Amino acid sequence: MSKTQPARGMRDFLPADIRKRNYVIGIIKKVYESYGFEPLETPAVENLETLTGKYGEEGNQLMFRILKRGEKLDISQGEKGLADLALRYDLTVPLARVVANYKNELPRFFKRYQIQPVWRADRPAKGRFREFYQCDVDAIGSSSMMVEAELISAVCEILQRLGFTDYKIRINHRKLLTGILDVVGVPKNYHIDALVELDKLDKIGSEGVLNGLMGKGISEKEGEALIFMFKRLSMAPTMLSIFDEQNKISEFSEDLRYKIHKDSLIGSLEKAREILSGSKDVQEAISDLIGIVNLITSEKVISTIQPDPSLARGLSYYTGTIMEVNVPDFAGSLTGGGRYDGLIGMFGKDAIPACGLSIGLERILYVMEERGMFDKLIAEGRLKADSADVLVTVWDEKTVGESLKLANELRSNGLRVLVYPEADKLGKQFKYADSIGIKTAIIMRDEEIAENKVKVKNLQTSEEETFAREEIAEKIKSR
Amino acid sequence: MSKTQPARGMRDFLPADIRKRNYVIGIIKKVYESYGFEPLETPAVENLETLTGKYGEEGNQLMFRILKRGEKLDISQGEKGLADLALRYDLTVPLARVVANYKNELPRFFKRYQIQPVWRADRPAKGRFREFYQCDVDAIGSSSMMVEAELISAVCEILQRLGFTDYKIRINHRKLLTGILDVVGVPKNYHIDALVELDKLDKIGSEGVLNGLMGKGISEKEGEALIFMFKRLSMAPTMLSIFDEQNKISEFSEDLRYKIHKDSLIGSLEKAREILSGSKDVQEAISDLIGIVNLITSEKVISTIQPDPSLARGLSYYTGTIMEVNVPDFAGSLTGGGRYDGLIGMFGKDAIPACGLSIGLERILYVMEERGMFDKLIAEGRLKADSADVLVTVWDEKTVGESLKLANELRSNGLRVLVYPEADKLGKQFKYADSIGIKTAIIMRDEEIAENKVKVKNLQTSEEETFAREEIAEKIKSR
Repeated sequence: MSKTQPARGMRDFLPADIRKRNYVIGIIKKVYESYGFEPLETPAVENLETLTGKYGEEGNQLMFRILKRGEKLDISQGEKGLADLALRYDLTVPLARVVANYKNELPRFFKRYQIQPVWRADRPAKGRFREFYQCDVDAIGSSSMMVEAELISAVCEILQRLGFTDYKIRINHRKLLTGILDVVGVPKNYHIDALVELDKLDKIGSEGVLNGLMGKGISEKEGEALIFMFKRLSMAPTMLSIFDEQNKISEFSEDLRYKIHKDSLIGSLEKAREILSGSKDVQEAISDLIGIVNLITSEKVISTIQPDPSLARGLSYYTGTIMEVNVPDFAGSLTGGGRYDGLIGMFGKDAIPACGLSIGLERILYVMEERGMFDKLIAEGRLKADSADVLVTVWDEKTVGESLKLANELRSNGLRVLVYPEADKLGKQFKYADSIGIKTAIIMRDEEIAENKVKVKNLQTSEEETFAREEIAEKIKSR
Repeated sequence: MSKTQPARGMRDFLPADIRKRNYVIGIIKKVYESYGFEPLETPAVENLETLTGKYGEEGNQLMFRILKRGEKLDISQGEKGLADLALRYDLTVPLARVVANYKNELPRFFKRYQIQPVWRADRPAKGRFREFYQCDVDAIGSSSMMVEAELISAVCEILQRLGFTDYKIRINHRKLLTGILDVVGVPKNYHIDALVELDKLDKIGSEGVLNGLMGKGISEKEGEALIFMFKRLSMAPTMLSIFDEQNKISEFSEDLRYKIHKDSLIGSLEKAREILSGSKDVQEAISDLIGIVNLITSEKVISTIQPDPSLARGLSYYTGTIMEVNVPDFAGSLTGGGRYDGLIGMFGKDAIPACGLSIGLERILYVMEERGMFDKLIAEGRLKADSADVLVTVWDEKTVGESLKLANELRSNGLRVLVYPEADKLGKQFKYADSIGIKTAIIMRDEEIAENKVKVKNLQTSEEETFAREEIAEKIKSR
């Protein structure tokens, strides 16, 4: 007898899980498609050389490698020569490979979404799995800030449709970060280290960050100046915060609210431009960010945007805008991404501008579950929790055919119909229906069949009603 | 610069491919759900010990094994100790594992479908891939022939909805095969070999099969008797064939056609029962098959059923009914399956009755592509071939915001809208739309914006028309 659990860090998804996952994935797909993003899928398995060297030392450690097969397997050479393939580690490297491989078939501007699992041999922990889904959306081929504006607008639409109302979209710019470091005088080769430390400002406070910076070899004076600068920018006073305190904004018209939010965002950004007027990088960054804000046309979207100069994100491949979506009751981000004009060209000769977001499907599912959002969706009838709308019972061996026939009639009317698979006591059949969440049962005994009627039992109230056979589909649908 | 092709035998699916695949998968899901089948998903990666020994020698050869990681990797012991995990090889073993692992959470009768990729290190060939999808549907927990009848009915519904009209569902029974071999006197230990040979009767004819049987050690006399018996059963004369020859049936009423098909099927089966009256196995098999036919309630379904005593199917785990779906222009089967009452219990203590079908998604896609069925679906507007319903052009930098705003208005009316990502010459924007199959473009210059109007260009005819902004969504939808 073998072990029956799934492999370590992997999960089986039973029907109730899949329904929730598919509900969320369905909304993500629908919104992305409404923006003209097209679906792409790539194989789970890639050539090892396609993935090697793309994810740094950590990626090399965590990649699942596949053993060579048959004669190709040569253990005499040690670890070398054991593996030739590996499991997909993210969706960005496969995208870059696809863009290079099909450059003559893909449109000049390629907007794609991809929702597939990736595999990482991480130590499993609460909310961390070895197989998990990524939902990536990327727009390839344009440097226009319209791309950022549409990505932000689409992700807002998705979160709103899922029922989130309290998310914030933090935006920043790689060049704003570089600019600040330059202005303060941090040498280029310390930039990455400095950003990693500054990213913790929210969590560990000024003193912790200062110690961290000094530990990385940055002088106390530069460190203090850096922290001051970040705090100064974050605190840039805005019209909005004054209004907000007085709780006035919600009473205004949508148009006015839109204007107030927009002016306020542009005000903060102009303030930052003033403070850091010495840096060309900063000027470019602020122009980009103001450009994005100017292209956000909806109050619902603009009211969620927060410029955040301390937002760094770990990955070093970003070249422009950086974005992250957060909710108050979850420590990590629900979505993150930005512009990376260097990465997509890695398999080709030319640099290709690109910008994208990755929605953390597992995290969204986790927060929705914790908040009881799925229960609400089920209660509202927007998410099905049952395997069928109705159970057709089987009275005896002779009437089985009539039960099957009725089931097909109901199915052709759009109902999901389960037929009890054997003739058995009705009580046992009702109990089974109840155990799998079905609320309606249909009874067809000889007398009902003879009169061309059908008896319907409400399994929650035990009420029974008899209807003409041709009415029955509509009666069940109207429940 | 790395290689940009996918790994050997694996495929990238570009948007046009995905749309076709999703169309077919969508119909399969919808029909299975209308029968009360529930979705299940299992991890791509299983513990090696879960899969080992389940697929015979071939499976062991073709399984993709995953290299152990970090300290667990010990190459000093040779091949042993190199791998601890493997990629999913089919969907049946994971189902058996799930049924054992969640026996307290799953319903007594568990009807599940599972549509996921599996991986086999087969030699790639035309139509044979190393990553391919399986669509399995199985009903666990009941020995009733209602299960078979519903599986047949569901697969017919799927094929009809996909547009197939010329498929046949061949049915046979494991015990009918055993019974025939017993009656003829073939010793038990030759049964499997004999069935493998008899399965070729269609392809290589009597003489070829006889030589094959003798090559396996079966005597000439037994071999001849076997072939005679199979031919005799296949030729059992039916009312149907007489009517069919005269091309009369199609003129009859649906009820009468149903009756004729059913009587004819039962007639052939009764004939076989008579011929093989000496075998208890045969009597059981015929009872099961007649039971199934009696439970098929639709003319559309019953007219596709063909009892075929030579149908063996390779897999040795079947215990009862065997089923296969074929179309004339494809050599293999589009769907196959049967009853396997021993297999699901392999991870537990108890034998659990089960019956299922596997739809060959890749084969169905292949036949539909070859027959031009997708082109027809696209022409009829039932399958979208374009990335968006409309392209909103961008006149200049100042009007970008208005273009984005209009796009969102159209999206909230249910349209899929692509916005050209940059201000550029209109001709270039039209050309781009055309290159990706979009047939309608929208123009918003300063004058249109000032008058709250929108210009619509038909990119196929170059006709332009101007509408009030609030009408535009409906106008585009009605095209």
